[in-house]
Amino acid sequence: MEDFPPLKNDRILRAARGESVDRVPVWVMRQAGRYLPEFRKVREQHDFFTICQTPKLACEITLQPIERFDLDAAIIFSDILVVPQALGMEVLMQPGVGPVFPKPLIEASDLECLGDVEAALPKLKYVFEAITLTRKELNGKVPLIGFTGAPWTLMSYMIEGGGSKTLSKAKKWLYTRPEASIKLLQLLTDVNVDYLVGQVKAGAQMLQVFESHAEHLNMDLFSKFCLPFLTQICSRVKTKLKECGIEPVPMTVFAKGGHYVLKTLSNSGYDVIGLDWTMDPAVAREVCDQSGVCLQGNLDPCALYAPKEELEAKVQEMAAKFGHKTNWIANLGHGIYPDMDPESMTTFVNAVHNL
Amino acid sequence: MEDFPPLKNDRILRAARGESVDRVPVWVMRQAGRYLPEFRKVREQHDFFTICQTPKLACEITLQPIERFDLDAAIIFSDILVVPQALGMEVLMQPGVGPVFPKPLIEASDLECLGDVEAALPKLKYVFEAITLTRKELNGKVPLIGFTGAPWTLMSYMIEGGGSKTLSKAKKWLYTRPEASIKLLQLLTDVNVDYLVGQVKAGAQMLQVFESHAEHLNMDLFSKFCLPFLTQICSRVKTKLKECGIEPVPMTVFAKGGHYVLKTLSNSGYDVIGLDWTMDPAVAREVCDQSGVCLQGNLDPCALYAPKEELEAKVQEMAAKFGHKTNWIANLGHGIYPDMDPESMTTFVNAVHNL
Repeated sequence: MEDFPPLKNDRILRAARGESVDRVPVWVMRQAGRYLPEFRKVREQHDFFTICQTPKLACEITLQPIERFDLDAAIIFSDILVVPQALGMEVLMQPGVGPVFPKPLIEASDLECLGDVEAALPKLKYVFEAITLTRKELNGKVPLIGFTGAPWTLMSYMIEGGGSKTLSKAKKWLYTRPEASIKLLQLLTDVNVDYLVGQVKAGAQMLQVFESHAEHLNMDLFSKFCLPFLTQICSRVKTKLKECGIEPVPMTVFAKGGHYVLKTLSNSGYDVIGLDWTMDPAVAREVCDQSGVCLQGNLDPCALYAPKEELEAKVQEMAAKFGHKTNWIANLGHGIYPDMDPESMTTFVNAVHNL
Repeated sequence: MEDFPPLKNDRILRAARGESVDRVPVWVMRQAGRYLPEFRKVREQHDFFTICQTPKLACEITLQPIERFDLDAAIIFSDILVVPQALGMEVLMQPGVGPVFPKPLIEASDLECLGDVEAALPKLKYVFEAITLTRKELNGKVPLIGFTGAPWTLMSYMIEGGGSKTLSKAKKWLYTRPEASIKLLQLLTDVNVDYLVGQVKAGAQMLQVFESHAEHLNMDLFSKFCLPFLTQICSRVKTKLKECGIEPVPMTVFAKGGHYVLKTLSNSGYDVIGLDWTMDPAVAREVCDQSGVCLQGNLDPCALYAPKEELEAKVQEMAAKFGHKTNWIANLGHGIYPDMDPESMTTFVNAVHNL
């Protein structure tokens, strides 16, 4: 590993480890995104995935919110769908539509067209390079978070071929092709393990796994098709890092809509559990506090539409529901929306810091 | 009220009232729908809303699943968006897209263009006529369910103008225009009250209120913008019916994604609480049983993709989680999907009856 500048703000890492903090750390999912005029300016000139694949651009965009707001972490600009791309699938980002796979997985035999871990990892080198460059450019200001999409979430994109209200095609695989599903989920797990280890080696100081499609499942399906892979990822990444003589970094799992699995996740090995905005933080504390796990979240992203005073009040209400300031990383309960006024982001971040 | 044929199967009404049943009653949301070839045949010849507006066609389609499957209830074929239509908004059903409002609500002043209760109700006469005709045609075989969309769910369609992943436009109203929002929600509540009373007068023997967009809110928003209107609807409908000398019918509320509000709903006056498939029935029983409320649901709609034996096992697992056979109406946790094999519906219905 390279020799990086010393870290000046370790608030989020301390919170993730359950240590005391002087103030509640805060970052925001999609903080480097379309709501920022400086982001849109770069996007006007470059395709979405070109930015992901160009370390200098990914670094520039990752730093944009850090320069504007008093945030406690940066998250590398990338996309969860770079993993299916690295496995050989084409993914386009269509304006106003979102990601589209021109050739989604249809038959179980389509799995044979996917690459293996050895072939996939080198293709993700640009992410590692972007992380190393960004870590240097951050100059120790705040920690850099790396991330990936959880296996089920990636699998469902690969089958649906884009957005879906029900994920019924992907869920049909779970019910009719459980073996092929598990084969695919295991492949994605294996890639994710090396991908996350590679991100830490490149300079990531914390990792988040996005199980964005948990909301379409239930305890039964989650137990079979998500949990074993999520726990594998966490334990194998930590073990591999130790074997390389690297101190494991805190790991977060964010299972959006996974209200039904909160207690289970709190004992799954992850250091931080992300909460979406539908969950009551007080209930989550009750369910999770015994595990000593750190919680992350969870203001309704739409609360940022509210007038300044009301938004500040909402942050205070949220803090009151989380109860104690330890074991909490403030965030929204979902990514910030593209039409948000950056001023609201300032209000949100400052309101957390003023708690 | 007309003199209708005597009811031969009151299983679902008994279950809703907490009375003992010889076997668990079952029906399925969207049971009259695109998965049925006989439905698609009618749809080939008629526009979606033309069917809703033509009592003979709505009746024919309502009866299709009753003729095919051993169901314990019929639900009138209609759409929740007939209410915004009756208030003066244009709604088109676009194939492959879903409902589209060419002129959604944008400014608070757009509310002035909406009609009032007195103007709206006569426009819904075709629903009442369809209910009366269907009730006669059913000849007492099973009870006929009437329904409506809950105010927030209708409001969000009227603002979004169609489907949305985040409902961020509609939620923005809640945060920035709470007064206009409440004005609109109250108008929709007032229309819904008379609309549901009218449905019972026309022959509906049970009523369901669909709060399909609860999943985008949280307890805070739900408490302000859903619950007061849902409880109003329930209590005012029951009071109005009594005042007309009509025995109130059982009322169901289905708040999809409303895991955070289950306990509150169980004490809101509704007789039946619908559960989506993400909720664990055993947890729901624990939360709700004290209230004596009946639960409805909640098999994952995608479980109908599973092979016959596995689907039967899933039904048995679901029953085991509901624990006791009283206070339970079996259903899916969401509407049946358009690509489902009708054979799976047979398997599901029979598996419930064989419990």
